[in-house]
Amino acid sequence: MKKNNHKRTTKKIGLPPGALVYTGTPKEGDTEITLITYDQESADTFSSTDLKEINSKVQENRVNWINFDSLHNTELIEEAGKIMNIHNLLLEDILDISHQPKVEEYDNFLFFTLKMLELTKEGHDHQYDHVSFVLGKNYLLSFQERKGDPFDPIRDRILTGKGKVRSRDAAYLFILLLDAIVDQYFLILEKINNDVAQLEIELFENPAESTVNKIILQKKELNILRENVYPVAEGFKLFRIDESDFISDEYMNYFNDIKDHLKQISDNINNLRETLTSMMEFYMIRLSNQMNQVMKTLTIIATIFIPLTFIVGIYGMNFKYMPELGWKWSYPLLMLFMLAGSIGWYIYMRKRNW
Amino acid sequence: MKKNNHKRTTKKIGLPPGALVYTGTPKEGDTEITLITYDQESADTFSSTDLKEINSKVQENRVNWINFDSLHNTELIEEAGKIMNIHNLLLEDILDISHQPKVEEYDNFLFFTLKMLELTKEGHDHQYDHVSFVLGKNYLLSFQERKGDPFDPIRDRILTGKGKVRSRDAAYLFILLLDAIVDQYFLILEKINNDVAQLEIELFENPAESTVNKIILQKKELNILRENVYPVAEGFKLFRIDESDFISDEYMNYFNDIKDHLKQISDNINNLRETLTSMMEFYMIRLSNQMNQVMKTLTIIATIFIPLTFIVGIYGMNFKYMPELGWKWSYPLLMLFMLAGSIGWYIYMRKRNW
Amino acid sequence: MKKNNHKRTTKKIGLPPGALVYTGTPKEGDTEITLITYDQESADTFSSTDLKEINSKVQENRVNWINFDSLHNTELIEEAGKIMNIHNLLLEDILDISHQPKVEEYDNFLFFTLKMLELTKEGHDHQYDHVSFVLGKNYLLSFQERKGDPFDPIRDRILTGKGKVRSRDAAYLFILLLDAIVDQYFLILEKINNDVAQLEIELFENPAESTVNKIILQKKELNILRENVYPVAEGFKLFRIDESDFISDEYMNYFNDIKDHLKQISDNINNLRETLTSMMEFYMIRLSNQMNQVMKTLTIIATIFIPLTFIVGIYGMNFKYMPELGWKWSYPLLMLFMLAGSIGWYIYMRKRNW
Amino acid sequence: MKKNNHKRTTKKIGLPPGALVYTGTPKEGDTEITLITYDQESADTFSSTDLKEINSKVQENRVNWINFDSLHNTELIEEAGKIMNIHNLLLEDILDISHQPKVEEYDNFLFFTLKMLELTKEGHDHQYDHVSFVLGKNYLLSFQERKGDPFDPIRDRILTGKGKVRSRDAAYLFILLLDAIVDQYFLILEKINNDVAQLEIELFENPAESTVNKIILQKKELNILRENVYPVAEGFKLFRIDESDFISDEYMNYFNDIKDHLKQISDNINNLRETLTSMMEFYMIRLSNQMNQVMKTLTIIATIFIPLTFIVGIYGMNFKYMPELGWKWSYPLLMLFMLAGSIGWYIYMRKRNW
Amino acid sequence: MKKNNHKRTTKKIGLPPGALVYTGTPKEGDTEITLITYDQESADTFSSTDLKEINSKVQENRVNWINFDSLHNTELIEEAGKIMNIHNLLLEDILDISHQPKVEEYDNFLFFTLKMLELTKEGHDHQYDHVSFVLGKNYLLSFQERKGDPFDPIRDRILTGKGKVRSRDAAYLFILLLDAIVDQYFLILEKINNDVAQLEIELFENPAESTVNKIILQKKELNILRENVYPVAEGFKLFRIDESDFISDEYMNYFNDIKDHLKQISDNINNLRETLTSMMEFYMIRLSNQMNQVMKTLTIIATIFIPLTFIVGIYGMNFKYMPELGWKWSYPLLMLFMLAGSIGWYIYMRKRNW
Repeated sequence: MKKNNHKRTTKKIGLPPGALVYTGTPKEGDTEITLITYDQESADTFSSTDLKEINSKVQENRVNWINFDSLHNTELIEEAGKIMNIHNLLLEDILDISHQPKVEEYDNFLFFTLKMLELTKEGHDHQYDHVSFVLGKNYLLSFQERKGDPFDPIRDRILTGKGKVRSRDAAYLFILLLDAIVDQYFLILEKINNDVAQLEIELFENPAESTVNKIILQKKELNILRENVYPVAEGFKLFRIDESDFISDEYMNYFNDIKDHLKQISDNINNLRETLTSMMEFYMIRLSNQMNQVMKTLTIIATIFIPLTFIVGIYGMNFKYMPELGWKWSYPLLMLFMLAGSIGWYIYMRKRNW
Repeated sequence: MKKNNHKRTTKKIGLPPGALVYTGTPKEGDTEITLITYDQESADTFSSTDLKEINSKVQENRVNWINFDSLHNTELIEEAGKIMNIHNLLLEDILDISHQPKVEEYDNFLFFTLKMLELTKEGHDHQYDHVSFVLGKNYLLSFQERKGDPFDPIRDRILTGKGKVRSRDAAYLFILLLDAIVDQYFLILEKINNDVAQLEIELFENPAESTVNKIILQKKELNILRENVYPVAEGFKLFRIDESDFISDEYMNYFNDIKDHLKQISDNINNLRETLTSMMEFYMIRLSNQMNQVMKTLTIIATIFIPLTFIVGIYGMNFKYMPELGWKWSYPLLMLFMLAGSIGWYIYMRKRNW
Repeated sequence: MKKNNHKRTTKKIGLPPGALVYTGTPKEGDTEITLITYDQESADTFSSTDLKEINSKVQENRVNWINFDSLHNTELIEEAGKIMNIHNLLLEDILDISHQPKVEEYDNFLFFTLKMLELTKEGHDHQYDHVSFVLGKNYLLSFQERKGDPFDPIRDRILTGKGKVRSRDAAYLFILLLDAIVDQYFLILEKINNDVAQLEIELFENPAESTVNKIILQKKELNILRENVYPVAEGFKLFRIDESDFISDEYMNYFNDIKDHLKQISDNINNLRETLTSMMEFYMIRLSNQMNQVMKTLTIIATIFIPLTFIVGIYGMNFKYMPELGWKWSYPLLMLFMLAGSIGWYIYMRKRNW
Repeated sequence: MKKNNHKRTTKKIGLPPGALVYTGTPKEGDTEITLITYDQESADTFSSTDLKEINSKVQENRVNWINFDSLHNTELIEEAGKIMNIHNLLLEDILDISHQPKVEEYDNFLFFTLKMLELTKEGHDHQYDHVSFVLGKNYLLSFQERKGDPFDPIRDRILTGKGKVRSRDAAYLFILLLDAIVDQYFLILEKINNDVAQLEIELFENPAESTVNKIILQKKELNILRENVYPVAEGFKLFRIDESDFISDEYMNYFNDIKDHLKQISDNINNLRETLTSMMEFYMIRLSNQMNQVMKTLTIIATIFIPLTFIVGIYGMNFKYMPELGWKWSYPLLMLFMLAGSIGWYIYMRKRNW
Repeated sequence: MKKNNHKRTTKKIGLPPGALVYTGTPKEGDTEITLITYDQESADTFSSTDLKEINSKVQENRVNWINFDSLHNTELIEEAGKIMNIHNLLLEDILDISHQPKVEEYDNFLFFTLKMLELTKEGHDHQYDHVSFVLGKNYLLSFQERKGDPFDPIRDRILTGKGKVRSRDAAYLFILLLDAIVDQYFLILEKINNDVAQLEIELFENPAESTVNKIILQKKELNILRENVYPVAEGFKLFRIDESDFISDEYMNYFNDIKDHLKQISDNINNLRETLTSMMEFYMIRLSNQMNQVMKTLTIIATIFIPLTFIVGIYGMNFKYMPELGWKWSYPLLMLFMLAGSIGWYIYMRKRNW
């Protein structure tokens, strides 16, 4: 099931801007905060529900990645905002799960919010979760609506020291996380590509009414993907890494790589949408064609037999004075006449290309 | 009921530009003018129908918010224009309820006009009212077509000193009012979102002809919302707060926040419009499908029984010389033959995938 | 009737650029030239068919408005061009009634050409006339394809000294005339708005085939209005009053006011076009729905009675050996069987949601 | 017949860029080269098939117009290229009749290629020919795919000294030729305008299936015109006469005039396309309406008479025991009952608004 | 068969950016590397599967073209990247066959990736292959997904010293290769043009249901071509040769020539798409028209004969008291009455323009 991420609850009506309200489904329980702090030599990880405890473990001269695995504790987010000196309006965006993706650079950090695709273990189901990043000089905060798996391989790489991640700064970590999120979009896109290819075969070979429903569902899925991908792509286009204080120019290539991927996804979405529209048209034409076929069949049969039935009806009348009734050859001649008439009519209609 | 806010009465034809004409429905009665004047320490409120009296209460070193709760007294508006030194062309815009939203900065004030969503207490009904703001250094004039509730919580907050409003200037008050207006748009958008979701279920499960009417009505509602939201969003895009003399840069965040909300509303409107278009298409296809089904049923029955009726008609003829009539097995053989023919035809048609 | 203002006659083929050809319907008779010359103190008006006479009455230190009330005398226009030092290519545009609206500033004057809505006295009928203006420092030339009324109130105001027009320069007069022309567009737009609202009611309540024709005619009317409004709006957008030598900055407000009106008209036209498109769609769906209803009725009746007719046909056959014919209860049993069969079939079809 | 000017023959595959290949239909015979050399005093004309001979007649201090009346002699074009110092890639464009219109300025000349409308004498038929111009300081080369008439009036004007052409430079001649080509576009546009107006009447009054074919043909014709006009208009937009070394600023007005004409043609094409689309829609609705009418007629007749036929069929049965058959008033009562039933049904259906 | 070049395998999920994965179909065997090294005097060619061996043959003061004829050996590509100092993210793009065309300039080389049309010898079949170029000062690397023929004529020209290629630098070679690739696009475009022209004839003369399938297939083919051409055209638009370190300005003309060709292809694709859309519409209208014809035929026949059958049914009833049955002229009069009725009805329907 897809989550409609546009429903902004009315909870916020009447409150001043900057009021902190979590707009997702209310949840119970604590938010787990995880700190991973690392440098080239080593990496340590701490988990707690107490932000102060986590904050005390932060080490200035290392990269510190603090992850919040849920958003429903608004006081916690507010506390984090105070510690990191984040404006209340941004905290509001972190908490508003219907907020559109955007990127903004501030004096002391870079703010990025977007949607992450959350897959169930079985891969059938998915939904889009609201994720926000705050990237400072030596730290990265990540706020997840739900604890998601896509970041796990990166956590592993940090802790085991695999790859270049440990030897680089927080911005590189941020780019890795973005890349992981974009890769998830490819996953769902590939699934839709396959489904559409399947649908195309179904449509050409043996379309049912349900085929149309499936086409419409795919279109909807694409629209949701597009809503989540387009604003990110736009944000990327406007964001100039070479003017940023938080991402060094050497990561330009990585940034462009993600940009390319987003463009490729956007183009693919557009192509798929066109394909689906064509498929609808084709189905309509097929329906019309079939209807034509049905009507031609009915018309041929009806226009042959209705007049014939009339003719035999004539000789079924009980008038006393109907001289033909007594003639010897009436019956076979009438039958021959009707046969000839039908054949003639049939040939005539076939000639008119029915 | 929605008000069509495009009908510009012909009253103005032949008048020179700047002629003051109220283009709404004529009304009786006085316009109540309310002044709220406040600073960090305290807040006072005065109501009167006499502008001069109100003007005498204005205190230069405090924030002064003067609200006009109707527009039909053109002389009063003209008087206000003279006191505040507002150009007649702007007064004309304040009075022309069909005027599109716009924002313009002048030497001595910022002018903003837009539509405010007016909900009835029951929430079923709504209409868009024309509202204009004139924001000066220490005052804010607001002109409402109708006395509306959305500003009440803000009035309360000023008078009770809740929140930051009392410690800030007139521009902040202006932003609070804008935010309240935009929040109203979310309300109606949420209602449409729910209605469309409902309609989608109705369409897939049990569509009636009225479903189409409902889709078209939702489309219309969306169009009206769009007409009111788009020009505001455009105005916001063009208005540069950092070049404004009346709104200080520190409110940039609040401004961007409202901008984000307007963009989110615009995108949501576009998505809903696409959804409604898809729903229309789906309904058309469903109709065609159903028609096909109906025609196939008719064709199967008719092409089986019309020829059979002809055959039995033959043996209902009264010819004298019809040898078959006397044969003993004619009747059962004919019945068998007809049965076999019908079954054969039925199987043939099913094979052609009907 | 609307005039198709795109037909450029072939008269001009083979002529060099700048050749003066009147492309409207040829007319007889003289062109009346009217001069109104005024300053703050007084205003005088002269009419003549002799341009030299008119020219001799022009007073350098007053505002001089010279109006030509027809275009078919190309020599007269050429003469005017020579006196005022207007390039032949511009004279060509003045004479080419199919020329699109445009605005251009030259060294010695501002040139403006657009279409003016000409209403008959009864208001039923209208057409668009080609009007051009040449605005100099102290004079305004106006060239009308046909003598029109919209300028009469302005003439009155000048001659009676009402309003501010007498105390201002030629540019203000020009703006007044433009404003009068744009006001005419509102007139026709309001008429279309009303007609479309009417059509909408007709469509929902009792649509006839003629309804579609009316929708298409409204669409056409809108297209013609759009063709005449859009290029003016575009011209206004490109024309920068603050760089103009002929219109002083103090009229900026008036200019923006006209711009706003043109934008409002454009947006309204777009909305109306969308509405009409929706109405067409709705009509199509209504037709399909109705067709479905018709076919269902036919199918129910036909699929019940065609088989029954076959059955009674069987017992109308004249075979000698049909034992049932002699049984006592055959007839009532058959009738009961047919009744039961029909009812069963009818229930079955209703269940399939017909 | 219209020529599809998009078919680029495969002849060029495998050749390096700049290879000179004539992509039109191969032709026999020589290319006639015509030189017109003139100044204010006199004008001379020479024709030859020998480029060297022509070249020897060129006079440096006069305007020299050299016209090639066919393109199939690639060696000749190459020779001209060498003499005039034209890059092979440009020669390739001159020879490639499917090349899109474009304008480019080089160090020593201005290059312009576009399509010229070629009309047969009878005016029924037309095709688009590839024409290229090379404009130098004192010369103009023109390369025509086919010898066309549109330039004849200009030749006449030069030779007879009519108009301003003799007193001006090669750029003015170039502008005259462009103007002549654009005037041809108006010709075909006017023809399409007339045909569409005719079609509109036909469509509203008495549409046949052929009407749709005609609409589609007009659409195609418009597309071809558009393909030829749009790139020229674009080229004009990008080409800045005030930065050109070959066209002096005093011709700005002429240039803008041609620009205006191209814009007018483009807008007219767009309007016509919309009109044709509307016409198609209207035809579809008309078809549906007619179908509805047909089906209603069938349904009314069939639902009245099919049940009646069944009823009379009942009393045509040959059962021995059918007491009604012997009753005296059976027959007239049955007839009355059937009459009443039919009338009732007919009224019922009319009430349901058929 | 066309290859869907959008399927990005899931192999890359979970890997960091820059991980080298070949996303095409896995293949066996070695990659043949071919070096052509040449200067004005001579040209040599070497083939090997060992990159080091090839690298040792590279001569600094000549042009060196190294071609890789497959991409599945990621280690080889990585090795090449190390030797040439190419960033891993670019190598990733070289290996990702679904990567969109793009052009990027780096410090030490120009990177270009696009799709090349691969035709089978028979010309029926084709697919798009991923090709990348790395252009340095004196070398050009080309990476082909599959060994393709389009480069063979260029190889020949280098080795035989035909044309200008040997006397120019690596950039000219690069331009030649691009030109060859773009020429291939013309090939497939020409094929589609022909097919569409064929389809148009088929559609107007004798459309079958398969015609629609063919139209849809052509549309798909066009979409694939467009996906491959558009990004190249975009890349060309953004790439400024005059700011490039690797392509000298003297090749500007060649570059513009390719640009023109790409624009021509794009425009032609758009026109073809519109044509195909028109064809679909036409087919729909044709279907509706035919349906109308069929229904009219059915309705005429049915509405004539169904009532007649009823009438003769009346006189087939076996009532004892039906006085008409005994009258002498009943039968011929009834026949006449029925004939007159049918003729009357038929005329009436013809008059209603059926």
